[in-house]
Parts: sequence; C-alpha cells; structure tokens
Amino acid sequence: MSRLDDLRDEAALFDALGAMAAVVGAANVKADDATRERYARSTAARPVRPLALVRPADAADVARLVKIAAGARLAVYPISTGKNWGYGDACAVGAGQVILDLSRMNRIIHVDPELAYAVIEPGVTQRQLSDFLRERGYPLWADCTGAGPDTSYIGNIMERGFGHSPYGNRLQHVAGMQVVLASGELLETGFGHYRQARAAHLFPYGVGPFLDGLFTQSNMGIVTRLGIWLMPHSECVNHFLCSVPDHADIASVVDALRPLRLDGTLRSILHIGNDMRVFSGGGLFPRAAVPDGARLPAALRTQMRANSGVGAWTVSGALYGSTAQVALARTALRRALRGTRARSTFVSERSLRAGDLAARLLGDTAVGRRLRARVALGRSLFAMNRGVPDGRFLAGAYWRRRTGLPAGFPLHADPARDRCGLLWVSPVLPLRGADMLAVHDLAEAAFHKYGFDLFATFSMINERALGGVLTIAYDQDDAGETARAKACHDEVFANLFEAGYIPYRVGNHAMARLDPEGDSYWRTVEAIKAALDPAGILAPGRYQPGVAAGLD
Amino acid sequence: MSRLDDLRDEAALFDALGAMAAVVGAANVKADDATRERYARSTAARPVRPLALVRPADAADVARLVKIAAGARLAVYPISTGKNWGYGDACAVGAGQVILDLSRMNRIIHVDPELAYAVIEPGVTQRQLSDFLRERGYPLWADCTGAGPDTSYIGNIMERGFGHSPYGNRLQHVAGMQVVLASGELLETGFGHYRQARAAHLFPYGVGPFLDGLFTQSNMGIVTRLGIWLMPHSECVNHFLCSVPDHADIASVVDALRPLRLDGTLRSILHIGNDMRVFSGGGLFPRAAVPDGARLPAALRTQMRANSGVGAWTVSGALYGSTAQVALARTALRRALRGTRARSTFVSERSLRAGDLAARLLGDTAVGRRLRARVALGRSLFAMNRGVPDGRFLAGAYWRRRTGLPAGFPLHADPARDRCGLLWVSPVLPLRGADMLAVHDLAEAAFHKYGFDLFATFSMINERALGGVLTIAYDQDDAGETARAKACHDEVFANLFEAGYIPYRVGNHAMARLDPEGDSYWRTVEAIKAALDPAGILAPGRYQPGVAAGLD
Repeated sequence: MSRLDDLRDEAALFDALGAMAAVVGAANVKADDATRERYARSTAARPVRPLALVRPADAADVARLVKIAAGARLAVYPISTGKNWGYGDACAVGAGQVILDLSRMNRIIHVDPELAYAVIEPGVTQRQLSDFLRERGYPLWADCTGAGPDTSYIGNIMERGFGHSPYGNRLQHVAGMQVVLASGELLETGFGHYRQARAAHLFPYGVGPFLDGLFTQSNMGIVTRLGIWLMPHSECVNHFLCSVPDHADIASVVDALRPLRLDGTLRSILHIGNDMRVFSGGGLFPRAAVPDGARLPAALRTQMRANSGVGAWTVSGALYGSTAQVALARTALRRALRGTRARSTFVSERSLRAGDLAARLLGDTAVGRRLRARVALGRSLFAMNRGVPDGRFLAGAYWRRRTGLPAGFPLHADPARDRCGLLWVSPVLPLRGADMLAVHDLAEAAFHKYGFDLFATFSMINERALGGVLTIAYDQDDAGETARAKACHDEVFANLFEAGYIPYRVGNHAMARLDPEGDSYWRTVEAIKAALDPAGILAPGRYQPGVAAGLD
Repeated sequence: MSRLDDLRDEAALFDALGAMAAVVGAANVKADDATRERYARSTAARPVRPLALVRPADAADVARLVKIAAGARLAVYPISTGKNWGYGDACAVGAGQVILDLSRMNRIIHVDPELAYAVIEPGVTQRQLSDFLRERGYPLWADCTGAGPDTSYIGNIMERGFGHSPYGNRLQHVAGMQVVLASGELLETGFGHYRQARAAHLFPYGVGPFLDGLFTQSNMGIVTRLGIWLMPHSECVNHFLCSVPDHADIASVVDALRPLRLDGTLRSILHIGNDMRVFSGGGLFPRAAVPDGARLPAALRTQMRANSGVGAWTVSGALYGSTAQVALARTALRRALRGTRARSTFVSERSLRAGDLAARLLGDTAVGRRLRARVALGRSLFAMNRGVPDGRFLAGAYWRRRTGLPAGFPLHADPARDRCGLLWVSPVLPLRGADMLAVHDLAEAAFHKYGFDLFATFSMINERALGGVLTIAYDQDDAGETARAKACHDEVFANLFEAGYIPYRVGNHAMARLDPEGDSYWRTVEAIKAALDPAGILAPGRYQPGVAAGLD
C-alpha cells in the first residue's frame, strides 16, 4: 500500500524527499516526470509509476533512508539494477512508492582466491564481476545467466534465479548476508554478526536459526551485501549440445539424463530448450511470411528447423573437470543417450577453432554462414560456462518487435527501454519426461489459443526438479497483442498452478495469485513480516499476496 | 522459563496432563519420578528434570498438545529420539518443561526410488531407514553419521548435523517440512502448502520466503515430517584412509586436499581425526598405566601410535562413482598428496576380502590381531558410506568410564544411560591448514591444563570450511573430573569464540553464551520468536540466549 494517500500534507512529502537528499545528495534524488516514466517501463506492459527515485551510496545510507521513509509513512522499494525482465523490471508492485535504486552500491569488497569467494554489493553486475576476476588474474569463475551482462548478481539471487554452471543453484553458493531491516537496523546473517568471526563467508548457516532464506523472494529486508562462492577454473570445459528431432522424443532423453544428474556426473545446470528458443536467438519473427496476429505456421516452423539443422529440442550443458574427468563424463553421456533419438555434439576449445577455420574457408556460402552462426553460438555458450556473460541470449525478448533488434545489440541490450513485450511463467516440475511433456502440452494449448509461439526452456535446477521458463514474447506497441499476451499468461499460470506445477518465481503482476486459499504458510509469512516491518514500509505487496491483491 | 512457577493451582497442571492423556492415551503421559529421572540423564552432567513426558502419535496429536500447553501456560520441549549426546541429550534447556517425545512418530511415509527421496517422521532412526531401504530393495542410500544407529534423522537435521557421504551436508538435502507452530497450526514449507503441488519434496525453496532454515537450531516450531533426499547406489565406493605421522604435517595435507574439495573431485565429507579418535574407537583409557586424574602421558601415546600403526592424524573419506570415476579420483588424490608426508590406503570390497583372508591365515598373532582390527574398522567405515550405521564410533564416549564398555556394545549403546561424560566444542574454521593448527593448539592448551586427552576431528563440512568436534570425554562418577571437564569446556569455548572460531552448534549448557553483545541478529530472532510464539511455549531457551541465561 502506498502511504501517499495517507499524507495529509504534500509538504510532509517534500520534507521527506528533502531529508533523503540530505543523506544521498540532491543529484541522487529524482522525482521529475521523465525519471518516473523511465522507471515505470515494463516488459510486462504493467507500468507502475514510482513516487521518486533515490540512489544511496552504501548500507548506512540505506538505513537512514528507511528511517526517513518510516517517519513519513512512505513505502520504499529496493531494486539492484532493475533488470528483472519479464517479472516486473524496475517497477514496484504498487504505484507511488520510492524506488531505492542500489546500483551505485557496486563495490566488489573482497575476493579470496584461496577459498574462492567474493563479497559484493547489489549494484555489482555479471559483467563487472567477470571483468574484475579476469583483469586481476584471479583463477575463479562466477556463475553466469543468460539474462544479460548488466544484470545484478544480488538481484538475481534475491529472486532465486539460477545459472548454468555447477554453481547455478545460486542460493546454495551464498554465505553471509548484510541486511538493512525496516527498523533501520543492520543485520548480519550466518556468523557475520560476530565481528571476530573467521568463517563469515565460508559457512552460511552460522549458529542459531538460519535466516538467509527469509530475505529471498520477500520484502523482509534490504540485502546490501553478501558473500558469493566462486568456482575455481577447471582444467577442461566441454559444452555439449544434444539435438532431439521430434517433440515427443524428449521425454526419454530427460529420463535417460536423470540418473547422470542424480549421481553427480552432470554437475552443472542443463537447459533443455525448444526450437523457438534457438530460432529467436538467431533471428526475428518472420512477419512478412505470416498473417497478421498469427504465430509461426507449423509448415514454416518445420522448414526453419530443417534450414538451420535444429531439432524440436536442444539439450545444452557443460562438463567441467580434468581432461580425463570430462572424457569420462562424455562417455557416460553418450552411453546414457544410446537408446534415445538424441544426437550429441561436444564443443571444445579445439572444435571451436576448427569450426572457425572451416567457416572462413567456406566463405559466404549457405553452409559457411550456417557454420559461422553455430561457431558464434558455441563461443557464447563457452564464454558463459566460464562466467563471461553475453547479451545474445536476450534476443528472444525482441522476437515480435516490429522494428527488430536495436542498433548495437547485444551490448547494453535493454528490453524494457526497447518496449519489448515479455511475460514468463516458470513452473517447477519433477525431473521426469512425462511431467515435462505434460507441462509443455498444457502451455502449448493456451499459447496456440492466443496465437503465440511457445518459447520453452526446462532447466535441471537441481538433481530432482526441472524449472520451466515459458516465455510469451509480444509486441507492446500492439494493444490487441498485449491484451492477448496477458490473457495467455493468466491462463497458462492458472492451468499449471491447478495441475500442481507451481512457479519457482513470479512477476509483480502475479504476486496476488499466490495464496488462493489463505493457507498457513502465507499467514506465517505475514506474521513474520508484521514483526519485522510493522508499518509495512518495505516493498509492500512483494511476495505478499494479500497486500498485492489490493494494489492490482 | 518454566511456566510452572506461575501456576496458582496444582490442579490446573493435573488438568493439563489429563487433557494431554485424553489426546495420546494415558500410557503415553508419564510424570512418575523414574521417568523424569530417566529423561534428566545427561552426558553433559547437567541433569534437567522435566515436568512430564508425553508421547504423541502424529502431527495432529502434537497440534492438540501444543494448544493444551498454551492454555495451561506450560512449556513443551520436543525431542525426536533424545540422543543428542554431549549437547544435552533428551533434556530441555530449563527444568519443569513437558518433554514431547516424538519417537512414536516413526513412519517412513513415502519412498520414491526414481527421484530418490523419502518422507519421514522425527522418530525414524538411521538404522530404521537403512534397514527399510535394504529390505525393500530400494537402490538408495541415506547419509549416515557416527552418532549411532538409534539416533533420529530429523533430530540431527534440526541441529544441522553432518554425515559422511556426498549428502553429508544434510540440510541441503531436505525439501518440504511439515511444522506444528505454537498456535497449533500446521505449516507446510516449500511447495507443500499447495495441496496439488507435484514438487513438494523435490525443490526446497517453493515460492515466496524460504522458511526451512528458520526451524533449524531454533524453537520456532516442531518439525513433524520432512522430505529427505537419498543417494542412488553407485557402482563403486572406495574408502580412503590417509595417515599423517607427525602433528604439524597435517597443515600441508589440508591445504593439498582443499583444491580437490573445491573442484568437486572429493564430493563427500572428509573427516580428519587425531590419534586419540582412533585409539578410543578400539580400546579404553589405560587407567592402570596412568597416574590418577592425569591424561595419557606423551610417551605412552607415542608408544600406542607405534603399536597400532596410527599416525598423529588420519584423514578418512569415501569416493563414489563409476569404477573409472573412482580410479580417477584416486589418482588425483595421490597426486595432490605427493609433496606431503601423508600415506594413503584405499579400502575397497576387494581389499577387505583380501584382508579378511590374510587375518584368518595369520591367526591369533600380534600382526593378525592388528590386521583384524583394521579390517573391522574398514568394514564399519564401508558400511557407513553406504548408509548402514554402526555404534562403534560411539566408543569414544566410553573412554574414561571406569567400568569400561557395557555388555553387548555397540548394539543399542546409550552413553547417557551408561553415565558417560561427554562435552563437545564444535568450532567452524576456514578450510586451511593454518587455521586447523591454530584451533587445535588453542584447544590443546586448555585440555592440557585440565588434564584431558584432546579428541579432535575436523570435517570438511562444505568446500570452504572445516567443522571441528573437540571432545572432552570424562567420568561422570568422579565429581572432581566432572568439574574439571566443565571448566575445560568453558575455557575452550571462550578462547575459540574470542579468536573468531564460532561453533556450528552448541549444547544446552552453552545456549546462554551465544549473544555476549546483544547483537541485531539475536534481536531479530527474538522478534520472529515473539511473532510465532508470543507466550514462549515452545522449548524456551533453545538457541535463545537471553532466555537461556535465565534458566542456567
């Protein structure tokens, strides 16, 4: 709830913003229309105008700002870099809140090369940490996502995002958070609240109740710092791509891979994407060939698959270890897939170099172009495996955009600025082929009904579950398409939810849907929230279905 | 705080116990002296008499009992099987509480062989789950600790205990808790509060704040059920034992092993034990050879090492995988240890069979006896790696007991019943040789001062930290020795705490020491406790330093 309605006097609001400016400097408080408009941009076509924008320099600033907000009964909404594409971007759940933009807090406070971790602030981006480690010569990689180089590590971890490497279950690789509470108090989790502690970033649990989880997907506090574990360079990395020609055949491939994920042969997070995911990474929706408002016709889709040599599904993942360990894993993978219809390719440094050479020899021929595209994809995947982020995996967001990719893509790609339409439904399902087909089919029925191409990725987020990311890419400049996209999202969400495939994460537009039955889990969350933030100052409505319902 | 003092009328107490008996049956409520005495037994020589003992049959019983207790302002203290040796056993932190003994709740509710998990209740013991899996032919192992076959899985997980296998970081292998709150409400964490959820035990986080950690090392609720992930049988298991002759040489061994733990070559939890740990597993304190009240003289200790072929330190761990994967790990281990003074042995099925045969051929000779002892140890370690628990690792608790091991040891060993004296200090330290020596030396100084042999184990509880377990084994029948043991515990605890080596877990006798500075972490914990249990009904003082201080 915005407390703005409660303000008897506009003067009190100006006083509060003035007090905030005294903390962070006038240049770091903005309430002009252009700024508010910019922060209201949303790929989810749900623009939410903030009251103002404030940019603190450090945790002490954040604590002071929270106290000022509490005094003025203003809601504050922290964002790290505000690039939560498809889930709400930089927007608060409700209008009229003060956005606390933490992007100035971008210090890499410490890196320990021996014990392989870093201590970072919320403004630290994937690109920044990756560059820092490389430039200083630390033999460490940070886990990387495809969400783009300018996204925040902490922002993603707070949403329990996942990456690609053996450290892809990111929350499991966090130790020691610093949190500003609604009271303005600074909390250190783990052992960090003991000033003399030597394992503050080495052992997450500390002693006593383990609180870290409470501050993820929540509005219980503002995380201003954390310890993130990094992966030591491994001698050898191979990327494997495994193509499955026909849709239904993916089920047996999933079931064949499950034992290898369970027994630790596959330690990184495998991603299983459909053909649309591959097409959208390499091109745009062929509007010219398709009736207005329609999705890709089946015949054209089949033809595109054939042209680009893409299967209905592609499994993508990385193997890490010594050369001998990776070779063993390759053998185990090949053996596991023997009875299936999957065709595997392993991408190594050497094969990329050979591909480069061959593509150059083939020149500007069809085969040469295809090979070059593959080598470029391989290079991007390979870089990501080693913690170097790449914007190219954001291309899918631009799929339905009438004006295509912006100049200079993918450097500094910004789907919200570029008015891309993007909505995600992210169900968790048992790591079983049958469940994957069931989720796909439920989603496909709704996507078909509303005329959207289903972009589907299923990721092995742990050894027993798949995290699905079902993307509705639409054109925000087309009002009818936007309305259809929202209806499609709601129907897919509802159908999957009812079928027991609950999302691992939701957008601002779906917060209110999380507690249809008023259950004891959400009542418990409310009780804790009331204890830690009795005035409801912090991010009201965020993973707080009861409050969010009133803000819609 | 016991609410007993507040009871104006004994009749109200009888009424409450009567109401409890109506829930669980009269046979399951006991307030006789013998029962109260039995539950007051403690290896920590800190007997705490409960008011009564109540044994619920299921979560619904627990909820009803909590409501009755709240009405009567009685504190209830849940135990799973009450075998928290050295940390408080079955005792509450303060006297006069009603012990909720959950050992009747011992159902294995579900096992999923495909996705490799079980759903269990608090009364399920290591032996029970292990037998169940073996008897039903499930190709799954449960992680196992050395705390004895009759200890509870859930009890250990609530204390964030660790085991030996790749699943030894037990809390990371839990998904979906059922919790009875102080209000009597039933809470399901993860996705479990959505009745239709299909991944309730496959993905711990659910959606919204992740609460599981809040219910570990705490008194926020009573966990009545959880999903525990199991390890699929692996084709090959090798146990390795690596002997380090002289004390100081262990530092370089730890540093040499760290990269293998960090890069995933060593996936299970390695344990590094000193010579005392090995001696105490195979014999008793040689009282006859030692002056009264003294510890093992240095010369005798050296002689015992030589006689039994034991080094100052022994590193013990298991390798899992395909035969080829295990072979690679053996090679990597050997290579890593090359520059150190460690001597490695790998124990396999085959080597155990060969050892058996050789020992039989050698018969009752010194060499034969020594070999037989080694094969027996190997068999126990090997069984434990495969989830079959063994009581022999409890022998250390009996080290100073004047009357030696009880008849029939180790089956159903019960150090509290047998009046063993046992106190543990369990610091967490960076996974570095220098830190391990520093902790050892700090502890050794105090153990020496108070005349105790230092039993030290350091376990690689994750890829970056060691969990130390420093054991004071003493004779509870000797009042002087008991007083010295307590003084020794307090001094070691204080010295390590001040030096930044904070414990991962504490005994009831040390709860009050956890918040010397009144810091914001503990204030936050108090705020949450007040929200979830305003009357302070559940386990007052448990990981609640402020309250515990008033109960000492």
